[in-house]
Amino acid sequence: MSYTAPVGQIAFILNKVVGLPEVSNTEVFAEATSETINAVLTEAGRIATEVIAPVNRSGDLSPARLENGVLRSSPGFAEAFHALAEGGWIGLSANPQHGGMGLPQALNMAVNEMVASACLALQLNPMLTQGQIEALEHHGSEELKALYLPKLNSGEWSGTMNLTEPGAGSDVGALTTRAERAGDGSYRITGQKIFITWGDSDVTQNVCHLVLARLPDGGPGTRGISLFMVPKLIPDEDGNPGTPNDLRVVSLEHKLGIHGSPTCVMSFEGAKGWIVGAEHKGMAAMFTMMNCARLGVGIQGVAQGEAALQQATTYAFERNQMGPIIRHPDVRRMLAVSRAEIFAARAICLACAVAIDMAKATGDAEWAARAAFLTPIAKAYGTDAGTRVADTAVQVHGGMGYIEETGIAQYLRDVRITSIYEGTNGIQAMDLVGRKFADGGVAAMALLDEILDGAKEAQSQHPELAHQVWQAAETLRETTQDLLECDLPDRFAGAVPYLSAFARVLGAHYHLRAAINGGSATLARVHISRVLPQFNGELAAARAGVADLEELDDALFLGQMAV
Amino acid sequence: MSYTAPVGQIAFILNKVVGLPEVSNTEVFAEATSETINAVLTEAGRIATEVIAPVNRSGDLSPARLENGVLRSSPGFAEAFHALAEGGWIGLSANPQHGGMGLPQALNMAVNEMVASACLALQLNPMLTQGQIEALEHHGSEELKALYLPKLNSGEWSGTMNLTEPGAGSDVGALTTRAERAGDGSYRITGQKIFITWGDSDVTQNVCHLVLARLPDGGPGTRGISLFMVPKLIPDEDGNPGTPNDLRVVSLEHKLGIHGSPTCVMSFEGAKGWIVGAEHKGMAAMFTMMNCARLGVGIQGVAQGEAALQQATTYAFERNQMGPIIRHPDVRRMLAVSRAEIFAARAICLACAVAIDMAKATGDAEWAARAAFLTPIAKAYGTDAGTRVADTAVQVHGGMGYIEETGIAQYLRDVRITSIYEGTNGIQAMDLVGRKFADGGVAAMALLDEILDGAKEAQSQHPELAHQVWQAAETLRETTQDLLECDLPDRFAGAVPYLSAFARVLGAHYHLRAAINGGSATLARVHISRVLPQFNGELAAARAGVADLEELDDALFLGQMAV
Repeated sequence: MSYTAPVGQIAFILNKVVGLPEVSNTEVFAEATSETINAVLTEAGRIATEVIAPVNRSGDLSPARLENGVLRSSPGFAEAFHALAEGGWIGLSANPQHGGMGLPQALNMAVNEMVASACLALQLNPMLTQGQIEALEHHGSEELKALYLPKLNSGEWSGTMNLTEPGAGSDVGALTTRAERAGDGSYRITGQKIFITWGDSDVTQNVCHLVLARLPDGGPGTRGISLFMVPKLIPDEDGNPGTPNDLRVVSLEHKLGIHGSPTCVMSFEGAKGWIVGAEHKGMAAMFTMMNCARLGVGIQGVAQGEAALQQATTYAFERNQMGPIIRHPDVRRMLAVSRAEIFAARAICLACAVAIDMAKATGDAEWAARAAFLTPIAKAYGTDAGTRVADTAVQVHGGMGYIEETGIAQYLRDVRITSIYEGTNGIQAMDLVGRKFADGGVAAMALLDEILDGAKEAQSQHPELAHQVWQAAETLRETTQDLLECDLPDRFAGAVPYLSAFARVLGAHYHLRAAINGGSATLARVHISRVLPQFNGELAAARAGVADLEELDDALFLGQMAV
Repeated sequence: MSYTAPVGQIAFILNKVVGLPEVSNTEVFAEATSETINAVLTEAGRIATEVIAPVNRSGDLSPARLENGVLRSSPGFAEAFHALAEGGWIGLSANPQHGGMGLPQALNMAVNEMVASACLALQLNPMLTQGQIEALEHHGSEELKALYLPKLNSGEWSGTMNLTEPGAGSDVGALTTRAERAGDGSYRITGQKIFITWGDSDVTQNVCHLVLARLPDGGPGTRGISLFMVPKLIPDEDGNPGTPNDLRVVSLEHKLGIHGSPTCVMSFEGAKGWIVGAEHKGMAAMFTMMNCARLGVGIQGVAQGEAALQQATTYAFERNQMGPIIRHPDVRRMLAVSRAEIFAARAICLACAVAIDMAKATGDAEWAARAAFLTPIAKAYGTDAGTRVADTAVQVHGGMGYIEETGIAQYLRDVRITSIYEGTNGIQAMDLVGRKFADGGVAAMALLDEILDGAKEAQSQHPELAHQVWQAAETLRETTQDLLECDLPDRFAGAVPYLSAFARVLGAHYHLRAAINGGSATLARVHISRVLPQFNGELAAARAGVADLEELDDALFLGQMAV
């Protein structure tokens, strides 16, 4: 059950595969020298391994609970969180003007991975806080920024995202929470929100809720929604936590996993709030937070997969059944394929983070478009691959994998939420072939060109592997072109397999790049011969369109017919 | 959370797709008239829906427990079990000579599916009892048969399979449990067994353990192992439960799912036992039990997938997010693909059962070889497909899927064991390309010929679909030929993807057969355009061989290198 932060692997991918040095070469990130990067990774890895990982199991066994309306977090969580906060890790990539360290997102995501490997339930707290910091930096007034950012960056206060309501999940525009102008520049918020992660906390002094609500003159749908900062304790004149606000935690959910993370039903009862961004423009600000969180969730998938894989691999070296089972071809295949998938998913997520950094550092729209295109792929593939790997890790354990004491099943239970929250993976895939195709395919084609160029570059060293990646990219380009010409329902019907196929090809590309830059050509071969080939079948499904799905009788769906 | 037995669908597959009428035409199964079949399916469906399904959730919430060494099963389990026993369902396919009903396995497996959909934790008890009945019928002495079979068939007593030990899981030959001759024809058994499903029970009067153990003159490995009947209570002269035997339940496991099924650590402390079959030939008898159980576990996968899919489909009709989500292409895709996979998996399992019946009825070695070939495919694909479908059912529920109260997560937790027990799915795949290829590919090629014939037959009605199935079968034939020429390690390295590809093609074949026999051509198209196409990528992985897996450094597996 012990986790060791894979600092060497992460540093290799950052430096040799996804181009962090290019980020360090910009003026904005000039302080991200290779010394700083190494120091950050090493120290964060140490804290993850030594301080955070030990509380993971107790979070599962002793879930957060509500005691007379007061939240009690799992044993050890407060100490682990404070170690994170005191290291300055929460504000790692935040603006130094308000207490952040101003380092690249790529580095921040690498740190987040290690913390999320160690304890997903705990890491959700700083991850959402980081999203809130990002939203405030972009959309908050100077006053809000000055008041909240230093406390959020230091981890004295934590942040939440209040979006979902019982009748408004994927359909955010259906929300019914009301906001009213108080006349003094503040607002009063009334309504119920569900699925609020870390909606209350006893590990920070204050909890800052970003809440979506509709003003009386806000139109229907998403365009009439505004975003408000609604603190649990209203800051006094000195900026310290003061009077309790009119909000409360109604109950906690009983979940499949991440037991240590309190998932709250929140009630806002005329709570005092301050607007973030312009009135009726709340979705833009929320999207800033969500985009950051989406990549963060992709990284969570990688993180949990890595931790589960480490445990399964150790088990395979130790468990003897006609020799150590790591020598059995099928067990080796499971672990090798998992290792290849984790590599690919990590590279995709970190490449997305690098694009975010480059967009920020250069103001270049192409980098921004690349980041936007990679975000749903990173989120969906990172979490799907992570879940697959955790599932395989259970399988490697045989019967022991089904016994909770072994600890491996916790990873499977915990990681399962990542394909659901921050927009289900279906939503991600529809975003990819919907909004992210709205440029007529420019961002997609730019990525495909890069993959083709990479294959050419690798041709002399690894002709066979390069050829397979080149061919896959060509096929993917053709299907992309076909999908661009389809109507939305047809695209949506194939969105999930299309995203998966794209991720396979992209992952193969990064494996190839690793192989020509001192990485393992064997691992690249494992990926290209065992993980990549399914892209073709997925592209067939991506092209299948919506007609047959429309044709299927309701009765057949419900199992009421003969077949 | 309610389940409705899909009697119509099952009857259609039995009658129109996998050839149950051919079984009914044999002398042995002459009593399996279509009236009897319909009556059995309808009544079993009613009991599953009305009597068994209601206890499923209480089994999860109130696990079986040990009270001062006495087993207490979950609330309602005893009543549900007695309803099953009283209906005569346990001995449905057992020999009438000892109280069975002598009906086909195909019908029995159909009934088992409905019971396992309703409550997997409970159904494990009769399923293992059925396996024990099968083993005794084939290998037990006349005395043992006369004593035990009537009680097992009636459900007064239940049966277990004691195989695994802490150091002997997949490697059965490593077991250390000892047997000694008592001099009176009986034996004394001493040792510890783990993972014993329903190792004790308060819902039956007696628990009959079939235990693998080694006699002093038993050689090493599997060839020196004998099988013993070791009852919890030693039958008295009238055949009623008498003196307690020297065995006990040490503890129960705390598992990811099937909480209502007590998984026991058993201690045999000089317990009295009687040999089943010849000394040192215990593996043959155990294999009889295991083969029956393997198909039964495949059916369990289908069963849990069906139940989860029903709940997800109902949810999709009811849940509104910009209209009922069943109208969203991606949700429709998830449910349609799941429906297609459940159809395919059910057909494969029932086709395997029909082959078992035909082998029994005709004594024809070809039918037996077909059953043997289909068994690992039915077990692995049934459970993998069932797990995928349960996972998709969680996803369809969005955030609600992660909340335990919704009930959908229980299916995912419960079904997860099915890919592990009765031989992991990796073991099944190695059995397929190992033992089941030992005939030089005769059984495989016979199946492929049938698929090609089926495609020809469907050509006029569904030319495009038939062409795709025909081509897939041709590609599969080529890969099969290639694998037959490979060494075992190379075969084993590709065994899992090969089995999956075979199942996809076989599933498409049954869909095609359904389409030309009054079933849904649209569902066939969903399968052939979205589920089948991945067979190609899997065959590429099947051909990849073991070389790259052998080449990968141990350090890289452990994550200690740069990549």
